[in-house]
Amino acid sequence: MKKMLLIGLTATLTATAGIASAQVKPFEAIEYRQGVFKAVKWHFGPLGDMVKGKTEFNVEEFSRRANLLAALSQMPGEAFLPGTYDKKTGALPNIETERAKFDEGMQNFQTATAELATAAKSGDMNSIRPAFMAAAKTCKACHDNFRD
Amino acid sequence: MKKMLLIGLTATLTATAGIASAQVKPFEAIEYRQGVFKAVKWHFGPLGDMVKGKTEFNVEEFSRRANLLAALSQMPGEAFLPGTYDKKTGALPNIETERAKFDEGMQNFQTATAELATAAKSGDMNSIRPAFMAAAKTCKACHDNFRD
Repeated sequence: MKKMLLIGLTATLTATAGIASAQVKPFEAIEYRQGVFKAVKWHFGPLGDMVKGKTEFNVEEFSRRANLLAALSQMPGEAFLPGTYDKKTGALPNIETERAKFDEGMQNFQTATAELATAAKSGDMNSIRPAFMAAAKTCKACHDNFRD
Repeated sequence: MKKMLLIGLTATLTATAGIASAQVKPFEAIEYRQGVFKAVKWHFGPLGDMVKGKTEFNVEEFSRRANLLAALSQMPGEAFLPGTYDKKTGALPNIETERAKFDEGMQNFQTATAELATAAKSGDMNSIRPAFMAAAKTCKACHDNFRD
């Protein structure tokens, strides 16, 4: 359905991350980054449940999900491209006009989730909890600034 | 829209990977795994373009995407759960009845993409090409057996 709604966009985009290796269509970039954020949510939720004591803390499971979250944090940035901000997405066009601030926010997300993955290895909730809260703040910062 | 279509499903599921740490709804599991596969496609495409010579081979960019692909391969398995196979997804219910075969297929996908990430580091297309083809075969194997 999303594909149908967006198929009117004919512009093609060139990925900005690293070497431009393929022409991508706007709907593909939107679907990709939305898919990545679905995966972020999938892993972030159970991590939060363990931090909050809603579910039993299990260090292996926490570490597994924290590592996957850190990998996911590397992914969405490259898909915020000119031509991919319209009413079908929550992403606001000021991502382009305030690109440095947006990129800094993405970097903060990557750093915080990497630190959470490191903290997870300790198995010490006194280290994990603040690292989790710091990671959650980096989500909120971008949502507040760049999401409808 | 997908959420609306699937909201009629009221069963909740417990993630099977590692410790069951959260109850998830079928549409969440479907959205998650579909999102992950969108991300797999996003990275697999440019890798294929470089292998086939459609775009210029760049070892850093190839490695970056191969590493992300290897991380993504760790993700979808946990979201193929009872109650998540219906006509809104291409996933077939024989995933449950042939679970060992499905899990083996997922393991092959993980192994092959990890080997591709290792091959990528060499920068030698003579190592990378067969590793890429082997990874592509693991996609096809599951699609042939478990996808509508």
